[in-house]
Amino acid sequence: MIQVAVNGYGTIGKRVADAVRAQPDMEVLGVAKTRPNFEAQSALDRGYSLYAAIEDRADQFADAGMEIAGPVTDLVEAADVVVDATPSGIGAENKAMYDEYDTPALYQGGEDADVADVSFNARSNFEDAVDADHVRVVSCNTTGLSRVIAPLQEAYGIEKVRATLVRRGGDPGQTSRGPINDILPNPVTIPSHHGPDVNTIFPDVDIDTLGMKVPATLMHVHSLNVTLESAADAADVRDLFADEDRLFLVPESLDIDGAGKLKEYAHDVGRPRGDLWENCIWEESISTEGRDLYLFQAIHQESDVVPENVDAIRAVTGAADAAESIETTNDAMDIGR
Amino acid sequence: MIQVAVNGYGTIGKRVADAVRAQPDMEVLGVAKTRPNFEAQSALDRGYSLYAAIEDRADQFADAGMEIAGPVTDLVEAADVVVDATPSGIGAENKAMYDEYDTPALYQGGEDADVADVSFNARSNFEDAVDADHVRVVSCNTTGLSRVIAPLQEAYGIEKVRATLVRRGGDPGQTSRGPINDILPNPVTIPSHHGPDVNTIFPDVDIDTLGMKVPATLMHVHSLNVTLESAADAADVRDLFADEDRLFLVPESLDIDGAGKLKEYAHDVGRPRGDLWENCIWEESISTEGRDLYLFQAIHQESDVVPENVDAIRAVTGAADAAESIETTNDAMDIGR
Repeated sequence: MIQVAVNGYGTIGKRVADAVRAQPDMEVLGVAKTRPNFEAQSALDRGYSLYAAIEDRADQFADAGMEIAGPVTDLVEAADVVVDATPSGIGAENKAMYDEYDTPALYQGGEDADVADVSFNARSNFEDAVDADHVRVVSCNTTGLSRVIAPLQEAYGIEKVRATLVRRGGDPGQTSRGPINDILPNPVTIPSHHGPDVNTIFPDVDIDTLGMKVPATLMHVHSLNVTLESAADAADVRDLFADEDRLFLVPESLDIDGAGKLKEYAHDVGRPRGDLWENCIWEESISTEGRDLYLFQAIHQESDVVPENVDAIRAVTGAADAAESIETTNDAMDIGR
Repeated sequence: MIQVAVNGYGTIGKRVADAVRAQPDMEVLGVAKTRPNFEAQSALDRGYSLYAAIEDRADQFADAGMEIAGPVTDLVEAADVVVDATPSGIGAENKAMYDEYDTPALYQGGEDADVADVSFNARSNFEDAVDADHVRVVSCNTTGLSRVIAPLQEAYGIEKVRATLVRRGGDPGQTSRGPINDILPNPVTIPSHHGPDVNTIFPDVDIDTLGMKVPATLMHVHSLNVTLESAADAADVRDLFADEDRLFLVPESLDIDGAGKLKEYAHDVGRPRGDLWENCIWEESISTEGRDLYLFQAIHQESDVVPENVDAIRAVTGAADAAESIETTNDAMDIGR
């Protein structure tokens, strides 16, 4: 069993811990948290060993009645691999600690690409991360773009990708964020960082991305254009995508018009936390105009990278190849069902 | 003086009336309204003669203490031209009345294109509307696209236009509309109607548009890509746009990040109702990647068609040519200053 440490138990970390626990070949050795908040309590309630991410704050956990197993360094030392799910920029600060204990580390997409030896998307470049010491799982939006680009590139070749990412202003719990009642070009300069980030996975793909922010919290929505190298039929593209377990083709018959109903649906089918690990592509939006393909997809910013983290654990530990890992992850989490 | 009737005194009609009144060669003969609401009262307060758009509702106005000059048919009969600013679909129903009194009529972009002999954008095809009996001023979004397409086509030629229109859910006064906290592909099918609508102005331009709706009321924001026929330098495109009075290049120095601050700015400089008649293009967003041009622009759905209606009045009455009309309109309204 691969012994996994999760450093940072917030939006991503708590989901990764649960996903790891669901795998047949992994165990959660423990999770580390900076503050004794509701998520720390929830970690204990779920039976995870809780470590203090900042050593001299152990007293705060004791004061809150939360039992600490030790400092995060103990956890990192004992683990086979650590998933760093700390806020953007903290992962880079933690890198020296992972090196000190010689523990392979995964970082999240909020870190700069140069924190790691390789940026990772399971569908696109699993092999690049095999036995690497530092791997960065790309962000939710880059993951969502990569999952679509990979099959299109294999089937048709890609001349150019143009994407407008209409992003949620903040996650449901981020009460300090905005905008309220506005539509912000964000960044106002073009391209946004997402295009260059996709190039960490697909160095040769020509891609321009534009970012916006709007008053919504549930999911991002992408307006995507891919100019293919050869003309495609929309029905064939739908069939191509239907074969990909991490692409959910939202059927017209379900009458799901946006992110709100997608989340309702996820809750209704019993998904933990209402998570949508797959890209949600509106099937009827898939359109072709000569070599130009268009579609709308919704990306659940809180969860689509979770199965990617699980696969990256197998890559850095050499525990499985891409196809085997993806199938195991999907089976354990019920992805694509 | 051209005697102008305004049938429909809501979001567009009330603005058109004020813009007509500001012109040196026009007079507002009267405005017609279906109901004695706050806008009807405001019309009287502003000194406009008020007509009952539905004849048997004259009593309702009397009951509300509002003096009616007569039925709308009297207004239409006496006018040189009528601007129909009624809700979508009503303009088509009114067409027979305008024909009956032989009064040239302007319709708004919510009507189907076939209501009129010609669809109109002053910068793009003024001459097509000269002496026409029925002219449709295209919608806010189509107006905003046309104003950018015209100079680009002249200077560089256009291979293809791709636009994602992130639209406000409703106007500030439309309290029954949504979404709340969502991002909707709308329509989910591609293309949206905007591309074909642009083709009523530019029949030969290859354009694909995608529409979305978000929880905002102030303005639409477009993510625009134009593949030009020849490579362009971003600075040259900025210079090209700077020569267009109905394109406002939002300077980086003003620190305007979205529609909210644009509207604040419009109020601060004393614009009536905080109107933004010009396309608001973020100057720093204008970018080129080979022959691909990108930019963000905000479109004020309540007002950008207003100067176009004024110009269309001169077109159908043969009162001026395009350059003369546009300059007169801009001078009278302080557009592009």
